Amino acid sequence: MSDGEEARVLEKALSSYYHYEEYALNEIWKPRMCKWMSLSNLQKSKIPWYGKYLGELKRCIMKNAEFYRLVVQRSVAYWGCNPNPDQWSQPTSYDMDKTVLMFTQILREWSQECQDERDLLLTRLRAFLNQEIPNKFERRVVKVLIPGAGLGRLIVDLVNDGFCVEGNETSYHMLLLSRFILNGEHPKEGLTIYPFVHTFSHQLSHEHQLRPIRIPDVRISEMLNGVCSMSMSAGSFVDLYGPPLGIKWSEYYSADIEMIRYREQNASSVRIVVTNFFIDTGSNILDYLETISHVLEDGGYWVNFGPLMYHYENDSQVEVTGDIDPTTGEVKNVNRFVPVKGLELSLNDLIQVACDQYAFDIIAKEIGIKSGYGRDPTGIALLGYMCNYWLFKKRKKSFSIC
Amino acid sequence: MSDGEEARVLEKALSSYYHYEEYALNEIWKPRMCKWMSLSNLQKSKIPWYGKYLGELKRCIMKNAEFYRLVVQRSVAYWGCNPNPDQWSQPTSYDMDKTVLMFTQILREWSQECQDERDLLLTRLRAFLNQEIPNKFERRVVKVLIPGAGLGRLIVDLVNDGFCVEGNETSYHMLLLSRFILNGEHPKEGLTIYPFVHTFSHQLSHEHQLRPIRIPDVRISEMLNGVCSMSMSAGSFVDLYGPPLGIKWSEYYSADIEMIRYREQNASSVRIVVTNFFIDTGSNILDYLETISHVLEDGGYWVNFGPLMYHYENDSQVEVTGDIDPTTGEVKNVNRFVPVKGLELSLNDLIQVACDQYAFDIIAKEIGIKSGYGRDPTGIALLGYMCNYWLFKKRKKSFSIC
Ligand SMILES: Nc1ncnc2c1ncn2[C@@H]1O[C@H](CSCC[C@H](N)C(=O)O)[C@@H](O)[C@H]1O
Ligand SMILES: Nc1ncnc2c1ncn2[C@@H]1O[C@H](CSCC[C@H](N)C(=O)O)[C@@H](O)[C@H]1O
Repeated sequence: MSDGEEARVLEKALSSYYHYEEYALNEIWKPRMCKWMSLSNLQKSKIPWYGKYLGELKRCIMKNAEFYRLVVQRSVAYWGCNPNPDQWSQPTSYDMDKTVLMFTQILREWSQECQDERDLLLTRLRAFLNQEIPNKFERRVVKVLIPGAGLGRLIVDLVNDGFCVEGNETSYHMLLLSRFILNGEHPKEGLTIYPFVHTFSHQLSHEHQLRPIRIPDVRISEMLNGVCSMSMSAGSFVDLYGPPLGIKWSEYYSADIEMIRYREQNASSVRIVVTNFFIDTGSNILDYLETISHVLEDGGYWVNFGPLMYHYENDSQVEVTGDIDPTTGEVKNVNRFVPVKGLELSLNDLIQVACDQYAFDIIAKEIGIKSGYGRDPTGIALLGYMCNYWLFKKRKKSFSIC
Repeated sequence: MSDGEEARVLEKALSSYYHYEEYALNEIWKPRMCKWMSLSNLQKSKIPWYGKYLGELKRCIMKNAEFYRLVVQRSVAYWGCNPNPDQWSQPTSYDMDKTVLMFTQILREWSQECQDERDLLLTRLRAFLNQEIPNKFERRVVKVLIPGAGLGRLIVDLVNDGFCVEGNETSYHMLLLSRFILNGEHPKEGLTIYPFVHTFSHQLSHEHQLRPIRIPDVRISEMLNGVCSMSMSAGSFVDLYGPPLGIKWSEYYSADIEMIRYREQNASSVRIVVTNFFIDTGSNILDYLETISHVLEDGGYWVNFGPLMYHYENDSQVEVTGDIDPTTGEVKNVNRFVPVKGLELSLNDLIQVACDQYAFDIIAKEIGIKSGYGRDPTGIALLGYMCNYWLFKKRKKSFSIC
C-alpha cells in the first residue's frame, strides 16, 4: 500500500470509531425502540419494564461512544492525522461492523474475565519457553514474532517474560486500538466499556447484558518495565516477512523493490513465531506456511493455537494475483478472477504439508482444546471452538550434493 | 396464505432441491477448482493430491443431488404438483442456501451419529412422561403438539412411546423432506447422504469431510406400528393455534375467518406442547407465549429445550402488522415498518414473563446444557450452544368475583 492508501485506510478506521454512536444507536437501539412502540397495549403491559431497559441500553451505547471518542482523540495525536473528522475517508458498513466486534476483542485481550481463555495458549507456551529458554539473559536476545497480534496482549505478556517481541497487524481497527491501549498509560481498570450491549441472544438476564467491564486488567506500563524490545509492524504478514519472491503478487504481497529487500532482511531472523487464532485468516494458507518457514531461523519454533475456521470459506469474492518477474520486477500473467475461498486444509492435511513440504518437525501437538473467543465465561454464551495447539521446529536445511 | 401462494412456496422449495446440484457445484466445487488451477506450479506441488480431492468432493455433491432428485420425484406425487420443473416458481438464493442446511437437519434428526444430541431432550422428556403419564392406554388420548417440528423425529419418537402427536411446520423445505422421510417406507439406513461435504472448516481430515452417512437410523414404519395418531400441520404456529383474535395481524397471523374459527377450536386442546430449538425463531416471542398458553388445556405442560439464539437479532428487515377489528374482521392501523428484530428476552425475563403474565408454574428448570445442532460428534466441529430445559405447567384459571 502506498502512504496515501495507508492514510485512507487509517482514516476509515478512525472515522468508523468516531461514528460508532450514530451507527450503534441506529442498528441496535432504534429498531428495538420502534418494535416496542409498535406493540399492542396488551403486549406492552406484559413487559412494562422494556422501555426503561431500552433507555439503559441507549446509555450504555453512549458510554461506549465516549470510550471510542477518547481513542479517536489520542489516535489523531499518535498517528499525526488530519484533525478534521469531516475530511476523513468515509467508513464502509464493514468498517462500522468492526467497531462492534472490537469490543469482544478488548474483552478477550484486556479483561480479567478472559484470563482463563488467554491462559489456554499462555500456559502451554510458557511451559515450552520455561523449558527451552529458561535463562533471563538469553531471552533478551530471543526474537519472537506474532502475526495477527490483534490488540497486543500476547506481545506484552511475552515482553514481561523477558523476550524481544514483534507483533504484526494488517487491520487499522486493531492498530489504532492497540496503540491506544499499549501507549495510553492507563491505570489498571481505568477505562470502562459495555462489551455485551450489542448481544441480545444467549443472555442470562438483561442486567448481565448491560454490565460494565473495566479494562485493562493490568497496569501495562509496569509489565513493560522500561524494556524497549517491543514493536508492532503494520502490514500484511506475507508482504513483510515472506520470501522475497516466489509468492504470487496480490493485494497482500507486493512487488515493491523496497519490500522485496525488507523481506530478504527478514529471512531466518526470528527464533519463535506464535500464531494465535491466525493461521486460518488468509486466502492462501500455503503463503502463510511459506512465510513462517522463511522468517524462522533454522531450528526455530512455530507455536500455533486456534481453530481451523477459515475466514474466506463462504466468501464469494475474487482477488487479483500475478507473477513477479524476478529479473525486471514487473507483474505478469495477471489473473483477476481468483476465488478467495479454497485451500481450507483439514487439520491432518495442514500438519502433513507443514512437515513434508515446509520442513517442520512436530515437537508437541494437542487437538480439541475448547476455547471461546472473547467469551463471557459467566452465563449461557455460545460455547466456542475446538482449538489445536502445536509446537513445530524448523528443520535445519541439509545440503545434498547431486 | 392462499392456496395459490402456498403452491408457489412449495414449488420454490421443490425447485431448490431440484437445482441443488448446479448450485452446490457452482458455490462449493467450482471456485475451489479455479483456486487450485490458479496456484503456481510450486504451490501445486506442495499439495499434489488436492485436485483429486476436489474430484471426490464433486462426486459426493452429485450423490447428494441424486438423493434430492428422489425427494423431488416422490414429492411431486405426494403433493400433487405440476410435474414440469421448468414451470415451477424460481427459488431464491435463500431457498438454495437451505438445500445445504437441510443436510445438517437430516443428520440431526435421522442419523445414529446424532442420537446423543437428540437424547439431551428425549431423556429429560421421557423421565417426565414416564412419571406423569406412565399408563399406555392413557397415552393414546394424550395430545402432544410440537411446533417447528422440523423433520419429525420427535413426533415419531413420541408416537412410538404411545402418544397422540401433532407436529407443526411453516417451512416447505422441512415439510417436503419430512414427508419424504416419514412416508417413504425406507429401510433402516437405506439412503446415503454426504452431509459434511459443504463444510471446509473444523475438519479433522478430508476423508472425514467426504464420508457418507446412512439414514434413517431406524425403520420408521416399525416405530409407527400402524398407529394413526400422528399428523403434521402446515402453517405458522401462531396462525393455527393462537388466540382467535388479540394478536396483531401479520404475515404469520391472518384475519381469515376460517382461520379464526380453527384457532377457536384449538383452544385448550392439547395436554403437552414441546418446543425444541423453536422458542427463539419468531419475531415476537410474546405471540409464541400467548399461543402456547391458548392451545394448552388448564394444567397442561409446556416442555422447552434449546438455546436463546434469536433468529431475527441481526436482521434489518421490517414487517407489516395491523389490528384486526373484532366486529368486522377488517385489518386497520396498518404499520408497514415494524422491525423484525427486538423482544429478544433474556432467560430470566422470559421465564418471569411466562410465569407472571402467562400463568405458568415452573415444575423443572435446567440451564446451560451443552448441545450441538446436527453436530458431528467425532472430530473438531464447533462446540455449539448452552441450552435451557424447562417444564412449565399452565395454571388453571381462577374466577374472581369483583
Ligand atoms: N495477512 C495478515 N497479516 C497480518 N495480520 C493479519 C492478516 N490477516 C489477518 N490478520 C489479523 O489477524 C488477526 C486475527 S484475530 C486474532 C487476534 C489475536 N491474535 C487474538 O488471538 O486475539 C486479526 O487482528 C487480523 O486483522
Ligand atoms: N412460526 C412458525 N411456525 C411453525 N414453525 C416454525 C415457525 N417459525 C419457525 N418454524 C420452524 O421451526 C424450526 C426450528 S429448527 C428446529 C427443528 C426441530 N424442532 C429440531 O429440534 O431439530 C424450523 O424448522 C422452522 O421452519
